[in-house]
Amino acid sequence: MKVLTRHFDGRTSSQRPDELIVEEPLEIHLDGVLVATTMRTPGHDFELAAGFCHTEGLLAGAPVRGCRYCGTGAAIESDFNVVTVETGGLAPTPTPRLTATTSACGMCGTTAIDELRDRLRPLPPSEPPPLDVLADLASRAAKSQELFDATGAVHAAMLFAPDGEPLVTREDIGRHNAVDKVVGRLLLDGRLPATGLGLWVSGRASFEIVQKAWAAGVATVVAVSAPSSLAVSAARLAEMTLCGFARDGRLNVYSGAGVG
Amino acid sequence: MKVLTRHFDGRTSSQRPDELIVEEPLEIHLDGVLVATTMRTPGHDFELAAGFCHTEGLLAGAPVRGCRYCGTGAAIESDFNVVTVETGGLAPTPTPRLTATTSACGMCGTTAIDELRDRLRPLPPSEPPPLDVLADLASRAAKSQELFDATGAVHAAMLFAPDGEPLVTREDIGRHNAVDKVVGRLLLDGRLPATGLGLWVSGRASFEIVQKAWAAGVATVVAVSAPSSLAVSAARLAEMTLCGFARDGRLNVYSGAGVG
Repeated sequence: MKVLTRHFDGRTSSQRPDELIVEEPLEIHLDGVLVATTMRTPGHDFELAAGFCHTEGLLAGAPVRGCRYCGTGAAIESDFNVVTVETGGLAPTPTPRLTATTSACGMCGTTAIDELRDRLRPLPPSEPPPLDVLADLASRAAKSQELFDATGAVHAAMLFAPDGEPLVTREDIGRHNAVDKVVGRLLLDGRLPATGLGLWVSGRASFEIVQKAWAAGVATVVAVSAPSSLAVSAARLAEMTLCGFARDGRLNVYSGAGVG
Repeated sequence: MKVLTRHFDGRTSSQRPDELIVEEPLEIHLDGVLVATTMRTPGHDFELAAGFCHTEGLLAGAPVRGCRYCGTGAAIESDFNVVTVETGGLAPTPTPRLTATTSACGMCGTTAIDELRDRLRPLPPSEPPPLDVLADLASRAAKSQELFDATGAVHAAMLFAPDGEPLVTREDIGRHNAVDKVVGRLLLDGRLPATGLGLWVSGRASFEIVQKAWAAGVATVVAVSAPSSLAVSAARLAEMTLCGFARDGRLNVYSGAGVG
């Protein structure tokens, strides 16, 4: 989306058109029940909705029979801002949730971690890719960050093979949405759990990112920026390899690879 | 919080302690009713809770009589992860909300914008600070970003005077939390609306950031990174000056200052 902006270069200013990243709300329904409203960049909406339901534990193993827009049929803009994920009633009936992003959280970090421990099993042992491969993922991801190139304003998530080869890349104004879109693609293709594959994210590794990767069965998470305290705790519980500050051929390992 | 990490420099790796940004859930209650759970960096929790209630429109003008932790009294960690904001029942009874961050959103961006239009009036006309002052805010803010210096992983929000002087700076793992903490400080000091003051944020300007600034009466918002499409729409409706990519003495103006 282009808008007219005024560009100030330190001395003078001039008007010019500028490309903006699109942000629109998406309502996610599960078997007809509203489970979340998220601000997202339109595109890959079925992946986002299905991925969200999976990574937040709402499906509880139920297969996704289909996804559809539930609009008026008039093909107006708002028709494409509501998606329902259908399991034919096999998923548990959703209960009202307070926030889209903190469903796993109780009163403290320990509660949040405990909830994950109850829901997910530690990942099977696997050998993470070599550190030099992980440290070079950002340059590989850059080749498919189309929206970032245009706007400088989106996050990306990339699923990669053990040799670092990019498999699925998705961009979104929300970090968690980009991850849900990647996981949703795998889910819709019947490729979960993603055993043996890794997830690269363009920003920080928060608790939520680690939770979503764990739910997808991803045993290696690599972030360009820092992890949070709770993300490291969750990764260690999952027996996941978690790397941060992975840029310019360097990185830090916070969980796995003999750390922690 | 320090953890042991393995640092890989491109050739060899070695273990060393590393400072992590703390992430913990906070439950926000309004007159005893749970209204949100947010992942935040502990500290300034009363500001965060009060600011959230104000910027999300939950107070509807009711004065805040006080804020308190509602724990068990045992002074354990989780006692400090629940805050209640008290208005003595003067605020409207909160209704169940789906997400902390998207309360304003209906089925599409237009609905989201309409909700703001109903709740908030356009800001009074004001002359924004000179562009060279706005383009230099990041270097001023850097002096008070203590957590960022230690961890490289937090967002900051800074309230500034017309001459660019920093007034209140807060850091948090969540961008929106940093803004709520700044607004909450003003609220608790009886200094809202923040007429004549500006808000600088270290990351992007999403719809949510503009919404919160507008609710606080801030007429100038400056972001280090890009704004979203919906943020620009909201800023134009508010008659707010919105700048993005404000770094290295340059910036773009997306709303106000004769643009749009």
